[in-house]
Amino acid sequence: MKKIPVIIDCDPGCDDAIALLLAFASDRMDIKGVTVSAGNVNINNTTENARKLVGAFKPELKIAKGCEKPLFKTIVTAPEVHGESGLGSVRLPETDKKLEGITAIELIAEILKESEEKINIVITGPMTNIAVFLMVYPELKSKIEKFIIMGGSSIGGNVTPSAEFNIYVDAEAADIVFKSGVDIVLCPLDVTMKAFVTEKELGEIRNIGGLASEVAYGAIKTSLDFYKEFYQKSEVPMHDPCTIAYLLNSELFKGERVFLGTELKGEFTYGETIIDYRNKFGQEKNALVLTEIDRAGFITLIKKTVETLNK
Amino acid sequence: MKKIPVIIDCDPGCDDAIALLLAFASDRMDIKGVTVSAGNVNINNTTENARKLVGAFKPELKIAKGCEKPLFKTIVTAPEVHGESGLGSVRLPETDKKLEGITAIELIAEILKESEEKINIVITGPMTNIAVFLMVYPELKSKIEKFIIMGGSSIGGNVTPSAEFNIYVDAEAADIVFKSGVDIVLCPLDVTMKAFVTEKELGEIRNIGGLASEVAYGAIKTSLDFYKEFYQKSEVPMHDPCTIAYLLNSELFKGERVFLGTELKGEFTYGETIIDYRNKFGQEKNALVLTEIDRAGFITLIKKTVETLNK
Amino acid sequence: MKKIPVIIDCDPGCDDAIALLLAFASDRMDIKGVTVSAGNVNINNTTENARKLVGAFKPELKIAKGCEKPLFKTIVTAPEVHGESGLGSVRLPETDKKLEGITAIELIAEILKESEEKINIVITGPMTNIAVFLMVYPELKSKIEKFIIMGGSSIGGNVTPSAEFNIYVDAEAADIVFKSGVDIVLCPLDVTMKAFVTEKELGEIRNIGGLASEVAYGAIKTSLDFYKEFYQKSEVPMHDPCTIAYLLNSELFKGERVFLGTELKGEFTYGETIIDYRNKFGQEKNALVLTEIDRAGFITLIKKTVETLNK
Amino acid sequence: MKKIPVIIDCDPGCDDAIALLLAFASDRMDIKGVTVSAGNVNINNTTENARKLVGAFKPELKIAKGCEKPLFKTIVTAPEVHGESGLGSVRLPETDKKLEGITAIELIAEILKESEEKINIVITGPMTNIAVFLMVYPELKSKIEKFIIMGGSSIGGNVTPSAEFNIYVDAEAADIVFKSGVDIVLCPLDVTMKAFVTEKELGEIRNIGGLASEVAYGAIKTSLDFYKEFYQKSEVPMHDPCTIAYLLNSELFKGERVFLGTELKGEFTYGETIIDYRNKFGQEKNALVLTEIDRAGFITLIKKTVETLNK
Repeated sequence: MKKIPVIIDCDPGCDDAIALLLAFASDRMDIKGVTVSAGNVNINNTTENARKLVGAFKPELKIAKGCEKPLFKTIVTAPEVHGESGLGSVRLPETDKKLEGITAIELIAEILKESEEKINIVITGPMTNIAVFLMVYPELKSKIEKFIIMGGSSIGGNVTPSAEFNIYVDAEAADIVFKSGVDIVLCPLDVTMKAFVTEKELGEIRNIGGLASEVAYGAIKTSLDFYKEFYQKSEVPMHDPCTIAYLLNSELFKGERVFLGTELKGEFTYGETIIDYRNKFGQEKNALVLTEIDRAGFITLIKKTVETLNK
Repeated sequence: MKKIPVIIDCDPGCDDAIALLLAFASDRMDIKGVTVSAGNVNINNTTENARKLVGAFKPELKIAKGCEKPLFKTIVTAPEVHGESGLGSVRLPETDKKLEGITAIELIAEILKESEEKINIVITGPMTNIAVFLMVYPELKSKIEKFIIMGGSSIGGNVTPSAEFNIYVDAEAADIVFKSGVDIVLCPLDVTMKAFVTEKELGEIRNIGGLASEVAYGAIKTSLDFYKEFYQKSEVPMHDPCTIAYLLNSELFKGERVFLGTELKGEFTYGETIIDYRNKFGQEKNALVLTEIDRAGFITLIKKTVETLNK
Repeated sequence: MKKIPVIIDCDPGCDDAIALLLAFASDRMDIKGVTVSAGNVNINNTTENARKLVGAFKPELKIAKGCEKPLFKTIVTAPEVHGESGLGSVRLPETDKKLEGITAIELIAEILKESEEKINIVITGPMTNIAVFLMVYPELKSKIEKFIIMGGSSIGGNVTPSAEFNIYVDAEAADIVFKSGVDIVLCPLDVTMKAFVTEKELGEIRNIGGLASEVAYGAIKTSLDFYKEFYQKSEVPMHDPCTIAYLLNSELFKGERVFLGTELKGEFTYGETIIDYRNKFGQEKNALVLTEIDRAGFITLIKKTVETLNK
Repeated sequence: MKKIPVIIDCDPGCDDAIALLLAFASDRMDIKGVTVSAGNVNINNTTENARKLVGAFKPELKIAKGCEKPLFKTIVTAPEVHGESGLGSVRLPETDKKLEGITAIELIAEILKESEEKINIVITGPMTNIAVFLMVYPELKSKIEKFIIMGGSSIGGNVTPSAEFNIYVDAEAADIVFKSGVDIVLCPLDVTMKAFVTEKELGEIRNIGGLASEVAYGAIKTSLDFYKEFYQKSEVPMHDPCTIAYLLNSELFKGERVFLGTELKGEFTYGETIIDYRNKFGQEKNALVLTEIDRAGFITLIKKTVETLNK
């Protein structure tokens, strides 16, 4: 079976960590590189987290650090969700894995230039790196298979009443990516809120044992604790892993092709995603937006991932 | 029991008609006047509908015509929902009921000036009349008990992906009303979508017989037909009647005090209401937003209304 | 010779005072009423100044108080230019002249309703009153001959780098007036900065003697002192009087028909007037914008005014 | 005397050509590289023009092609001013001068990384390249001495009533550059409109003879013909050369330190520069804005340039 070539642009981040584990565990994934963005926490912490995750589970991968701040805004982070370090209580082993000596943008360019096949780009954080990449190397757009993005919401936001975190942090970057002409698969809160892990399932993941289990448990537990405290819930959505799950098995999802836009001018609605399900604006449809998930299949995938990585 | 003094500013409109019937039927309502706005259809049709409804059921009421267009925008109407006339297939008897020879704004001022008690203002259409009234007579604000408004949504819009019709038609007017300092009760789609009438219940309303039954049936049927065609639903929300139902029996509803704002600057989000349930913007709470309804009680109220008006 | 029917909507204000004197002195002016706006100072002070000016020079005129604040913004005033009272060092005689018991908006409506001929409306302050009037009584627009407005600039602003005071204070009101479809003559800074009075000319006005001379001297001196201190100039522009001077003798001026708009959305440019001399936006021309003045003739008019009022 | 290290980012363009000639002719200039932007005409034509100018006069220079379109907007060009080719009637000799095989952004990064001294960056077109550079390599900002920019206006625009071409084409890029924290010298229309060449002076330039004279004559003549036709003028401003003239001899200019901003949100004023001479906004001063020029000295510099290049 043909492998899926992919670059993962992420800001780990608890749920980014799970997304990376899903990708690391699958022999169907051909990970060309990992690039790091600022978002859940600052760029130094997200980079350090990504470096250690790669070092622990897939040290042969190239990894590079990206832009330290959004295109126009100052950086907004979410340490209340992910902990100061970005990975809460997770303790990753020390590693001598090195970053590439070039920027994330340069690494993406290098990978695409050298590739003969089109490459998927998964984005699980703010889209600053990818927007800047598109500005510098527009001619390499043709080498991108599609963007698979965690971000946005049509069901209310988690930063403001209407804006989701990843888009809000750098809405201008999102706008550039959405308008790039590259095919888009979006995993908004509409679907990711349905991709939750229950406390019981988390216990099962823990019971598998081993480093991957420990990391997955710690990352999910950190988010769950936040959900318990702020929303009085005993289950926690796994936003970012939906992207990799979709790449591995798109049949776990249902979605709709729609026009997808970003609000840049609103006084209260900056960073809101426009997911025009009923085509009220009559604009060209530029994205497949996922709306439903087979949660049982998704949980099975997470468990299998942890088991695989422990072998 | 003390009567509830009220001015009703409406744009009938099928669901406005039901709201008016609820008010007309209750001996607990002290209706001081009916003023008409443009919205569901143009000002001439909404005024004609309101005049005939008053003429048929409560001819002693004062009624005046309001502003023909929104403060800044050109008028947007919804004949696809309410029919060209605004009342679909409803046939109201001819009447020699006359409009007051003054504008809606002047009638509201006159009523408030003469009143010794504070008066509720129910608004079931775009808020142009009330915004203009507040501009001309700011000193009469102290005579208003509260605004009970049908409008807005935090669960997606019905004109654009995020904007509800009444607010979208004149968002600047909404902004003026929301910032007026007068107490606000808002019935957004969040609650009115739960205030639906089923096809079966509509049949029961029809079976009551008489003019009120005929009018109620025709108005609800017109909206239901639209819902069937566009949304494949066999039930239809009764948005505007929630306002009068709340005044008559607030215990039918649950709500939350929140900051309520209007987006005026968005490229895609003009007219979106900001209902800040989690107080993300940290602004002062200026509205009670209704979120839940006792639907059984609401349906009973509608049926009782029709029976009462037929006596 | 036919008299010129006019309503004067003003916010005195030093240069408003001179404008009023020009109008009071001319037997060709048929002043139907004076309405007062908030602007140079707050509404109570502008109203008191207008009342005393009318009481002193033309007590038979009707005068009414207008809106206390702009449509959307909070009020901005300019006491540094006009003094706390709005008329600097000017001491007007006490008077028992009474305000009409109705609002400015109602007075304008009453005058237009009763008039068989079209009436000019001169506006020398922020346009709140007129915008609200247009909203309440759109059907009376046909009774307005034209608006003669002091406001705007294409040569830099006096409140922000690009916005002129009268427009900036209530740009939404300006937008409504500019888009009303009524013919507009605009006196922006482009022309009013050329309508200056020198220190020497001010001395000549003072030497005429009498109450009108005293008032004119005091009003101009107050503005001149500000210009001396802030701009190191020994001459001071007479903005508002250009409106009346134009009505009395349009041959004193040159102008161009252009598209005239208002910037409402800019971060830095809110309240900037768009005077599209080269028709870059290709919009319909809605205003005659004055650009040149015969300053000698203008000064002669001011002197003649003072002499006439002293007879 | 120490040489002035400089990168020139340009979009030739008739007046860009003159700016390049000024730089090429001076032995005090240490040109590290020429990078090309889209603007006056499309990127292919501006790049071809720059390549031929370098090939003809300074073939040892590195030259690289930049971004083909603005960050967010579609490209706007000005072929009516510069001719379809961008250099009007100018015929440059064929050359085998090659572009660097890297992008403008990469070339700038390479030059700055290798340099031990800080380098000036002259920008005579839209600022897309520089904005993208700042995004990808924020850490190299410390290697930039200052930006010397042709753009903006406080005296009315040349694209819209208030916006100047270079800023209007990519106002978001301008915003990023203005907010970069790097020191800025701006040559807006305020000064460049005073840096005109008369028809007589153009004749004198032509009479010098030789290739440089031919090129300078053709470039200036193309612009002059446009000015004659559209503005009925027999003199033409030389906008871009002011930047190099300032670097060579800052004593030819007067200026003021001010806050410099860009309007990104205006309906009519998008791309307007905010040059806050009177500090109305109370923001930190981030630019030296040139306002006066010693035109005689400037013309002498142009003539000397042509003479030098012909030696």
